[in-house]
Amino acid sequence: MQTHKQLTIGLFGFGVVGEGLYKVLKQTPSLTATIKKVCIKNIGKKRNAPASLFTTNKEDLLSDPDINVIVEVIDDSVAAFDIVSTALRNGKDVVSASKKMIAENLADLLQLQQLTGRSFLYESAACASIPVIRNLEEYYDNDLLHSVKAIVNGSTNFILTKIIDEGLEFKQALLLAQQAGFAESNPVLDVEGFDAVNKWTFLLTHAYGITASPASILFNGIQNIDINDAIVAKSRKQEIKLVAQAQKLTNGEVAAFVLPQFVNHDDHLAFVKNEYNGVVIESSFADKQFFYGKGAGSFPTASAVLSDIAALRYGYRYEYKKLRDHTPHKLSNSIYLRVYVSFDDISYIPKERFEWIEEWHAQEQRKYLAGVIAITELQHTTWWKENNTSLILATNPVIEEVETRRLKKKSLELAGII
Amino acid sequence: MQTHKQLTIGLFGFGVVGEGLYKVLKQTPSLTATIKKVCIKNIGKKRNAPASLFTTNKEDLLSDPDINVIVEVIDDSVAAFDIVSTALRNGKDVVSASKKMIAENLADLLQLQQLTGRSFLYESAACASIPVIRNLEEYYDNDLLHSVKAIVNGSTNFILTKIIDEGLEFKQALLLAQQAGFAESNPVLDVEGFDAVNKWTFLLTHAYGITASPASILFNGIQNIDINDAIVAKSRKQEIKLVAQAQKLTNGEVAAFVLPQFVNHDDHLAFVKNEYNGVVIESSFADKQFFYGKGAGSFPTASAVLSDIAALRYGYRYEYKKLRDHTPHKLSNSIYLRVYVSFDDISYIPKERFEWIEEWHAQEQRKYLAGVIAITELQHTTWWKENNTSLILATNPVIEEVETRRLKKKSLELAGII
Repeated sequence: MQTHKQLTIGLFGFGVVGEGLYKVLKQTPSLTATIKKVCIKNIGKKRNAPASLFTTNKEDLLSDPDINVIVEVIDDSVAAFDIVSTALRNGKDVVSASKKMIAENLADLLQLQQLTGRSFLYESAACASIPVIRNLEEYYDNDLLHSVKAIVNGSTNFILTKIIDEGLEFKQALLLAQQAGFAESNPVLDVEGFDAVNKWTFLLTHAYGITASPASILFNGIQNIDINDAIVAKSRKQEIKLVAQAQKLTNGEVAAFVLPQFVNHDDHLAFVKNEYNGVVIESSFADKQFFYGKGAGSFPTASAVLSDIAALRYGYRYEYKKLRDHTPHKLSNSIYLRVYVSFDDISYIPKERFEWIEEWHAQEQRKYLAGVIAITELQHTTWWKENNTSLILATNPVIEEVETRRLKKKSLELAGII
Repeated sequence: MQTHKQLTIGLFGFGVVGEGLYKVLKQTPSLTATIKKVCIKNIGKKRNAPASLFTTNKEDLLSDPDINVIVEVIDDSVAAFDIVSTALRNGKDVVSASKKMIAENLADLLQLQQLTGRSFLYESAACASIPVIRNLEEYYDNDLLHSVKAIVNGSTNFILTKIIDEGLEFKQALLLAQQAGFAESNPVLDVEGFDAVNKWTFLLTHAYGITASPASILFNGIQNIDINDAIVAKSRKQEIKLVAQAQKLTNGEVAAFVLPQFVNHDDHLAFVKNEYNGVVIESSFADKQFFYGKGAGSFPTASAVLSDIAALRYGYRYEYKKLRDHTPHKLSNSIYLRVYVSFDDISYIPKERFEWIEEWHAQEQRKYLAGVIAITELQHTTWWKENNTSLILATNPVIEEVETRRLKKKSLELAGII
């Protein structure tokens, strides 16, 4: 058998994930990976491990030549980037679970990996137990990947499930999510889509070689989804999901965004209920694939961290094939989106910015319209996130430029205008 | 960036998979993998590639020192084993798609890998485009894997979908599968479960370190599933699937079999329709995971072969962790199964071999019973496959020994016998 690298780990963070990892590694000596030192913030706290294991001095880990792997599972993205970049520069391989840190420092992290030649793995940072990053890296060649659609945030999916399936109000659903431990006490990161777009940032790198900042990707959360939107969804035999989507266009660019979306009951993503995550990948070769599993929580996260550690034993590193070996794709700004917009007061809605409007419901308790709008109209404005307005994408929301022109002409003709 | 091994490939077979692979490799120079020579049987046949590429002499590939990778996608399992074992002995890495060959020669192939130190990869041999082997290898540690349930044969799943969802007779459904290219003209390998149990053989190795021969695993196909069974399934709000199942028992052994099974509509496997495959993995850490995709066909298979070739670039090989690093699990012979048996004539059914019978329907057009039987009673007999008898497992079919004794006592008490 091949001989494996002996891994000596310095662990940052001993919360639920860190402690879980420590326990598992103790139980699986076959992994030939041992934790030499754990760096924590609060040395006074009682821990289920020998006191000699702990330190508050990060240099005890980062400057120890015996330690060849740094595992970082802390909650502070600034501190995490400092740890990760120092560790890579010091010649250590790194495993991280910090999606926010990775999204915000993606360009630097890519450069650091090239510069140092070390492995930097973060399977647990997106969809936790679903091996989405490694599968995107290994199984899909650039030119063959048509689209990726995913539910990457468990809290919002839990809340939407409660609203749609059980008819709960948003606030009740959020409270339930918090009680079940699926949402932070400050839920803004989840609910307003920040967490989802952070994950989408680096998933786009592995899927399409795109290195955009989170801020440059169109996104929203579910904060304005109303029980009346759920009623509309039901009447259309659909559900509402917060979908992260990327789709290759005929011009070679990629349309990508994270927005609430209507999905049909028989769609793979409709199968994903409560706190679960799901990823649907369409490619020319493998056709349609669907991955489903727990996207958060201490054990699923620890399990993904463990798989990264196991991969380090044979020197695995992400190759970023779509970025290095191909001409990376560009994010498109020239697409149009088919949207549903519900609102309290029509005066908040800039009707004239739509290409055309297909449906108009002004009598209902909650008013709404359905129409087509340029993605740029949403990128540079916030009216669609404010004043209790909610914007939900149609099932196949992306309309390319040429098709939009054709459809627009047709709709004007039908209206007798041309 | 790390430097990759330059791969020079000798390809055996130029059918749909082989030719697909040839085309893709030509289109992706970034893979740094080129096909130097292709060995075929019939040199006269017109091929979409330069004639100089082809040979009928296998030594032109196996003895060429330039060729460091043999890819084998032929249909003859005896010839395939000869090619694979010679290639490994000659110091070449090997990628194979021949499930039957792998299942039948598993022990030898394991030994050859240890002896030669070469990589032998076969992701395409089970569930084609679903990366199930690599995920079982990399993501699940032995002690944490509770169960694996899978639909691994697309033809039988297509046939069952047509019977259950569309009310077709078995023969009509089979014909449709053949017309759509999902079943061989001699469909016995698929329909009677041989293909599924072959795949299950080596999936059990990666999941649990079990190295059993296909013959030692209890299996059947769907040849006797009747439209009346479909009616029973419907009345129970269930479907029938050919399920390959492995489940860890409290005594540390593993119950494993491939048999038709009733599944609930909300079960992950019920989601898998037509020619698709699906795998549900339950583990302590990652909880429940579900992988779904195309399990056969030229492109999905070529896509999986391609991912194996890509993995060879960084020297990847299966570690068979469950086999090498742990005490491998044993197949259990001490479990009991909750089964449904439908039949034409009661005289074919050895009622006395059941532990107890829970339901008895003698009036229906198609008669059936439901009861509990020892797995050994099925392993050593064939009555349940013959005379148009069909045996279908209940939703949670596995009953461990102690539990069986408890339940049996209870049922005898209820019957007033003790």
